[in-house]
Amino acid sequence: MCHPNLVALAVLLCSTLLVNGGKVLVFPVDGSHWINMNIIIEELHSRGHEVTVVRPNDTWYIKSESPHYKTITINSSAGIDKERFGAFVMETLTMRRQGASLWTRLSMEYDLMKQLIQMHVKVLEMVEGMFEDTKLMQSLHDAKYDLVLTDPWIGTGVLMAHRLGLPLVFNVHFHCHFAIAPSPLSYIPTPLSELTDKMTFIQRVQNMLYFFFLTLQNWYITEPNYKPFVHRHFGSDVHYMELFQSADIWLMRNDFTFEFPRPTMPNVVYMSGFQCKPSKPLSKELEDFVQSSGEHGVIVMTLGSVVEELPEDITEDIAAAFAELPQKVIWRHKGKRPSTLGNNTRILDWLPQNDLLGHPKTRVFVAHGGTNGIQEAIYHGVPLVGLPLIFDQADNFFRMKAKGVAKVLDIATVNKENFLEALKEVLYQPSYREKMKELSSIQRDQPMKPLDRAMFWIEFVMRHKGAAHLRTESYKMSSIQYYSMDVAAFLLAVILLVFTIFVSAFRFLLHKLFYRNKVKKE
Amino acid sequence: MCHPNLVALAVLLCSTLLVNGGKVLVFPVDGSHWINMNIIIEELHSRGHEVTVVRPNDTWYIKSESPHYKTITINSSAGIDKERFGAFVMETLTMRRQGASLWTRLSMEYDLMKQLIQMHVKVLEMVEGMFEDTKLMQSLHDAKYDLVLTDPWIGTGVLMAHRLGLPLVFNVHFHCHFAIAPSPLSYIPTPLSELTDKMTFIQRVQNMLYFFFLTLQNWYITEPNYKPFVHRHFGSDVHYMELFQSADIWLMRNDFTFEFPRPTMPNVVYMSGFQCKPSKPLSKELEDFVQSSGEHGVIVMTLGSVVEELPEDITEDIAAAFAELPQKVIWRHKGKRPSTLGNNTRILDWLPQNDLLGHPKTRVFVAHGGTNGIQEAIYHGVPLVGLPLIFDQADNFFRMKAKGVAKVLDIATVNKENFLEALKEVLYQPSYREKMKELSSIQRDQPMKPLDRAMFWIEFVMRHKGAAHLRTESYKMSSIQYYSMDVAAFLLAVILLVFTIFVSAFRFLLHKLFYRNKVKKE
Repeated sequence: MCHPNLVALAVLLCSTLLVNGGKVLVFPVDGSHWINMNIIIEELHSRGHEVTVVRPNDTWYIKSESPHYKTITINSSAGIDKERFGAFVMETLTMRRQGASLWTRLSMEYDLMKQLIQMHVKVLEMVEGMFEDTKLMQSLHDAKYDLVLTDPWIGTGVLMAHRLGLPLVFNVHFHCHFAIAPSPLSYIPTPLSELTDKMTFIQRVQNMLYFFFLTLQNWYITEPNYKPFVHRHFGSDVHYMELFQSADIWLMRNDFTFEFPRPTMPNVVYMSGFQCKPSKPLSKELEDFVQSSGEHGVIVMTLGSVVEELPEDITEDIAAAFAELPQKVIWRHKGKRPSTLGNNTRILDWLPQNDLLGHPKTRVFVAHGGTNGIQEAIYHGVPLVGLPLIFDQADNFFRMKAKGVAKVLDIATVNKENFLEALKEVLYQPSYREKMKELSSIQRDQPMKPLDRAMFWIEFVMRHKGAAHLRTESYKMSSIQYYSMDVAAFLLAVILLVFTIFVSAFRFLLHKLFYRNKVKKE
Repeated sequence: MCHPNLVALAVLLCSTLLVNGGKVLVFPVDGSHWINMNIIIEELHSRGHEVTVVRPNDTWYIKSESPHYKTITINSSAGIDKERFGAFVMETLTMRRQGASLWTRLSMEYDLMKQLIQMHVKVLEMVEGMFEDTKLMQSLHDAKYDLVLTDPWIGTGVLMAHRLGLPLVFNVHFHCHFAIAPSPLSYIPTPLSELTDKMTFIQRVQNMLYFFFLTLQNWYITEPNYKPFVHRHFGSDVHYMELFQSADIWLMRNDFTFEFPRPTMPNVVYMSGFQCKPSKPLSKELEDFVQSSGEHGVIVMTLGSVVEELPEDITEDIAAAFAELPQKVIWRHKGKRPSTLGNNTRILDWLPQNDLLGHPKTRVFVAHGGTNGIQEAIYHGVPLVGLPLIFDQADNFFRMKAKGVAKVLDIATVNKENFLEALKEVLYQPSYREKMKELSSIQRDQPMKPLDRAMFWIEFVMRHKGAAHLRTESYKMSSIQYYSMDVAAFLLAVILLVFTIFVSAFRFLLHKLFYRNKVKKE
């Protein structure tokens, strides 16, 4: 039976949740980031808001025609060539596979960083072009948008929101916690550090070193890149980080089934799992295949959209390992058909991931560690075998491993034996499944669906023209002020001064006393 | 029209919000704290949970019979005598009124502190008695409660939850932020400091000094009080603060219409305004009186339940000020009828505060600054004139003043003139009302009603036997670890060592070189 308060709640929600047709200007990021943004855009559209997407002309995925949004296409040379990117990833994986020296790996990292810097330079050129395009800027002004929604992985949306004087909502990666909330290094692992919230002394030293490295990277790479641009357009006392940190709402692709508990801020809204939804029935053919697995169940494997192929020796090993299991396997694989493929394995070009993960026969999900896939696995309670490839994937999987719901393999050393062993462990040790079911029950047990929560706060920003009451302005302080170093120095100086005066006075008195005694004696 | 997602949401809420008859063991605090707790208890009861309240036999307000809860009555001598307390407050106010010297005021503070310490000693005696009462403890064990709900202003509930091994939910004062969330002193004002989140250098120095004072108070008063007890019952390496900080959920009587934006933790649930509800019609007589105010509207004044009387000279001045206004005044006043009372002022023993605040004719609320009254004023959008008396009231009002919705007077200096001036300012400067309406619209614009949110999280703790995924265990670290001081010292030592080795090696080389040159020359 429905509690009367819930009816009242639903009525309250009806009266407050809806805003009459807001106007949202979106600056998305391409690639897998677009998948997330598109879900939010579709939901905004379905709630009667008008969405305008600013897309570079060299985008991979962002279509110029959509029933859900209008587009403004901008000339850009900031995009990354898809073929070249694919080749780069393949080269990286092969090198790691062949046991590249530390030097080679560092130089590869350096190369990647150079390319990222180059990309940011080109992004700024693009934004400069937009700022100078008076017709474009006038039309953006005239359109009277309610807010800018952006993925701040690149800075276009941040810069444009400030130029247009619009409230700013982020759809943001969880690593950005470090940019907004206090993060004591004693129990908050630095992004990519692969550490947990419970660290030994040595791990805490590592964590601090990682943090220094990140800070240096920010000081010497991000800031100098943006500095001349920001100074030119927003004033010589403004830092890019300030513009970034002033966002009204941070819709964070995160929650505490995924992240370790940590300090947060009032304007951080966790929306992990916002893309999750109940599964739909499979196609007749796929359902028959799944059912044929009997009591053994099914293994689902896909490595995401960014990496379409794996080095051949790995796929051979993977196929051989699968062939030894009694389970049926559904594997999204695009390269050459492995020679070792067993009868139990079905290779597909594309698979209905959510419907398969929600199927009661699914036992294990072999994944690369993108946050979307991990969230869907949590939602459906399916334990994981991880084969992280690039970017934050190893770090994401590390969290799942720490929570006891994933076995993780290293692409450099994976082979038939350890792959098979990992699969068997997750299949047959009940703790993986039990803990994942527990995470799933926590993720589903929220006062509000994550996507509804995200919508509420976007609409809140429309209604109140921002969310000033939730946002500290502490980011305007210098580090010296923020960490009270000036106050500490001042108090220390006062203490020293008082101490010195006291000691001097004491010595003076002693001197007087002795001197008098001396005189008396004489 | 109701959005389809909202229907889905309501269904989701129906399926997840309800728990079949949980059992809650409540350790409340007496006085105005009980008003809050009782609202939560009534709501728990109405949702089908069984509530047991542990009440000391010397309580002021906590009744032994109620349709909403069962009681367990405990022998206690920790309670404060109501008459004596009233006399103490009156004496304090009179002294402040007469311009007591700093010394007198400090000695009064010291007296108050001594009494508080004495109270805590007696509380611990009471808890000791309960721990030793094997029959009571057995019955509490056997009752299989789902959780302990307590106001941790006194420690009974905290200690009992740990002894019984039960999850712990706090109904807690907002000052407790400092006990759980990082609070950078550069922009987080220390409790009772009357500072904002934007401080000058001197204010930041003040803030740090306040913080030192609070820390000392904790070190030398709270901890030593609890230490022997906690060591005896929970082990010699356990601190009371650890037991306190390990609570699963902190239902905080706070939100960001009241508090300045600041870091928070995932297990802090803001529930300010949970007691707020739409107003009901007034009695015929009161409604007639209110309507007779015409366009001028009504002023409502009450100073809460703790302080029942004011020094006579103040009430004379207040009445005289009211008499000069065209508004009608409704004043809850229990002492002698002031001789200066005007025809426009109605004195009542008790007034329907919420119904009056929600009345469209109400223009100003003259209050003492308890959080309940302030929250109701925010909810109904009525600006404030403040006459803070004791405890946190001045600090609460300071927040309202900083937000531009209240004019605050000092009880030591209030007189007819400045009281009248304050009333006129709030009545006739539109900014007070406008800003309060803005706060009101923000407070009402939440994805969920505060009381429903509180209920959700209490029931979440029932369903999942705690909320471990939202709770850091950083409180188990020493301060040296928490603030990474050991890591910093280690890294500094390494740097110094490397530097020393480098310098030594350099000097050694130089020496060799010069020595060789010298030998050559010779």
